[in-house]
Amino acid sequence: MINPILLPELRLMLAENDGQGLFEVATELHPATVADFTEGLSVEDTWSMLSHAPLGTQADIFSYYSNQKQEEMVLGGGRQRMGSLLEEMAPDNRVDLLKRLDDNVVQELLPLVAKAERHDIVTLLSYPEGSAGSFMNTEYASVPAEITAGEAIARLRNQAPDNEMIYYIFVLGPDRQLLGLVSLRDLILARPTTPVEDLMQRDVIAVRVDEDQEEVANKMARYDFLAMPVVDSSGRLVGIVTHDDIIDIVREEATEDAHRIAGVAPLTLGYLETGLLALTWKRGVWLAILFLTAMFTTTALQQYEDTQIEFTWMILFIPLIMSCGGNSGNQSATLIITALSTGDISLKDWYRVVRRELMMGLLLGVGLGIFGLIIANYYVGMPHALVVPVTVTLVVMCGTMVGSLSPLIFRRMGLDPALMSNPFVSGIIDILGIVIYMNVAILLL
Amino acid sequence: MINPILLPELRLMLAENDGQGLFEVATELHPATVADFTEGLSVEDTWSMLSHAPLGTQADIFSYYSNQKQEEMVLGGGRQRMGSLLEEMAPDNRVDLLKRLDDNVVQELLPLVAKAERHDIVTLLSYPEGSAGSFMNTEYASVPAEITAGEAIARLRNQAPDNEMIYYIFVLGPDRQLLGLVSLRDLILARPTTPVEDLMQRDVIAVRVDEDQEEVANKMARYDFLAMPVVDSSGRLVGIVTHDDIIDIVREEATEDAHRIAGVAPLTLGYLETGLLALTWKRGVWLAILFLTAMFTTTALQQYEDTQIEFTWMILFIPLIMSCGGNSGNQSATLIITALSTGDISLKDWYRVVRRELMMGLLLGVGLGIFGLIIANYYVGMPHALVVPVTVTLVVMCGTMVGSLSPLIFRRMGLDPALMSNPFVSGIIDILGIVIYMNVAILLL
Repeated sequence: MINPILLPELRLMLAENDGQGLFEVATELHPATVADFTEGLSVEDTWSMLSHAPLGTQADIFSYYSNQKQEEMVLGGGRQRMGSLLEEMAPDNRVDLLKRLDDNVVQELLPLVAKAERHDIVTLLSYPEGSAGSFMNTEYASVPAEITAGEAIARLRNQAPDNEMIYYIFVLGPDRQLLGLVSLRDLILARPTTPVEDLMQRDVIAVRVDEDQEEVANKMARYDFLAMPVVDSSGRLVGIVTHDDIIDIVREEATEDAHRIAGVAPLTLGYLETGLLALTWKRGVWLAILFLTAMFTTTALQQYEDTQIEFTWMILFIPLIMSCGGNSGNQSATLIITALSTGDISLKDWYRVVRRELMMGLLLGVGLGIFGLIIANYYVGMPHALVVPVTVTLVVMCGTMVGSLSPLIFRRMGLDPALMSNPFVSGIIDILGIVIYMNVAILLL
Repeated sequence: MINPILLPELRLMLAENDGQGLFEVATELHPATVADFTEGLSVEDTWSMLSHAPLGTQADIFSYYSNQKQEEMVLGGGRQRMGSLLEEMAPDNRVDLLKRLDDNVVQELLPLVAKAERHDIVTLLSYPEGSAGSFMNTEYASVPAEITAGEAIARLRNQAPDNEMIYYIFVLGPDRQLLGLVSLRDLILARPTTPVEDLMQRDVIAVRVDEDQEEVANKMARYDFLAMPVVDSSGRLVGIVTHDDIIDIVREEATEDAHRIAGVAPLTLGYLETGLLALTWKRGVWLAILFLTAMFTTTALQQYEDTQIEFTWMILFIPLIMSCGGNSGNQSATLIITALSTGDISLKDWYRVVRRELMMGLLLGVGLGIFGLIIANYYVGMPHALVVPVTVTLVVMCGTMVGSLSPLIFRRMGLDPALMSNPFVSGIIDILGIVIYMNVAILLL
């Protein structure tokens, strides 16, 4: 998103080196807004605009730039400037950036970061992509259990400048083990002399550092938390995940699902950011698999070339029948995949799902079959035309069955249901469709 | 989600009427956890379990039940009990429930709710589905601008018991117009004598009450807010939207997109909650439209029946060629639709998109064409076999073009790009595929 409205004014300020004006622009608007309208500036101008803001604000604005702009700024910014910016950035944003940079650039930057921060970066970089550890934040508010509400608020005042999220305060034992959680709301409402121990919730819902991001997102969405604690295998607090990360993850997972459903290996970057050859590869692999599946339709058709049936008129309806089966199969597969991933249905509902899909397949099949009869009668007349409605009904039922059962079977096998992509479902139904079509013709005529 | 682990113990407590035990169960766990494992109880048992908890906790637990369970409990709960529960529920959850109930049930319940709450319900019910007003919360923390930070915290202590979200405090003028925003964090950090006026951010990013939920979600995701103010046309604060609602909306929108892409009119309820006939209808409408599109393939094929070309061998490859075009078109359409809805690309990128898709179409087409040549040579030999790779290359390029341009054109026309569903794209490509196939054959042979 580039907001060009203020750009000319900003360019003027930069040309005139209007420090006061640039400071106001950078500090008085929301960092995301500043990032939006300076996205279009040259790398050098951006650095010079940022240099008029305090370092904390610089880091905030920088975090809101697009991935591409961030990388350009690292390469064009000079190591020194980038080193101090990295110290100020939120741990999760900073690790996100470093993961996208070349290894040798990272090795150049790391020595410029203070030791404590460097240690934090190296730890976070070690968590596998997609685990809670890979997107958690290591800056959180914490207090011991023994102090009072009033003392806790006083401590928060010291911790707040460094911590994004001070509304949930984690109560830790001497070895950083997570004992409980107290919200700032509860602290404010309590009498200042009440011990934190009496205020805290002990039944805290936490995630493990190696837990998958999809599970973490599901828990956050279910419990409406602002943040959730991340613990290691011995129950020690190592970080938190926050509500804003969860929105990004929910989007990412949904987009990945949509891509898998369409037979594209999920992209790790945006559409325009992914290299042309990488994208071609992610699509080509699936297209090649699907091509080989579709080859069987050729074999299936050849089997019937030698039968005695008068064959030529039947060609006219091959595309029509294939598209009926494919479309109804796609609908079922997508409905079931999305319902599984939002938790709307689970494996134990399989019987209800199959019953519904069979019923819908029958209703839709008969409906489309009637259309089919009218059309076939117009083109080829009776009795040939009868083959089309019978085939359409059977093919649509077959489509809803294959489309709904495949994702369920994949989930049962512990695989991602979205891997049972729509083109794959269509491929299977295409072959079945031809077999059904030919056999119905042989039986009826 | 039904968690059956604690159910037997709970049934025992209910049978023994163990008030103390039931009170502890209902109050010591997170309301979502209590809802999860009591989801499987009978309506009567659920009401009797809830009756041991304070009314606020009852409302919290009730809000976490599935839609179906909530509706059963309303019908089996007695009007009196439901009336007091409605008063305690958060305004957005309560309106959500009432929208799903029959009008006559709502008319029975409303008189049992206190007047102020009733007024709030009727106002919220009047906002159109999908607007910010329809899911906003009317309970928020607010202070006037003239008071000090210390006084503001004292006022918050009074407002907190009623308000879910006290971490953002809205600063209002005498006529409730939104002047600014101050976070609880800033209030805690400030000296108690500092005027709120000096602490508040004035450049508050707000949403209009009639703004579409997708735009609201995009703003929240961009700015990482916990909550955003909702204002009416004169800038008066009427409610807030909170982070937890946004996660639900992002999910809902992504699922809707996936359904539209597969050619299913979006469901307002879950898969199993939608009636069989309603679901059949939502699918049937699209299937019928697609069926009529597919009819044109029949017409296209008929055009070529009378040409002099030896036709029969060509049938073998019709399904293969159609699936190549359909699959590559689906991939492009899904990539572009998801990239448009996450803001990854916008209309002004159309030229880059077309160039990339043309290039990818060429690479993928030539790749699959080579496969095609090998297979066709095996089945029908030269020179016939040459028709297949040329057709495949052209059809795949055609697929990427139709698939990528259609959603862009729909967006340009102000329509939802996801309406340019994959089956529809496939339908167009099927027809083009046949025309290309026949013409290539006529030219080459």
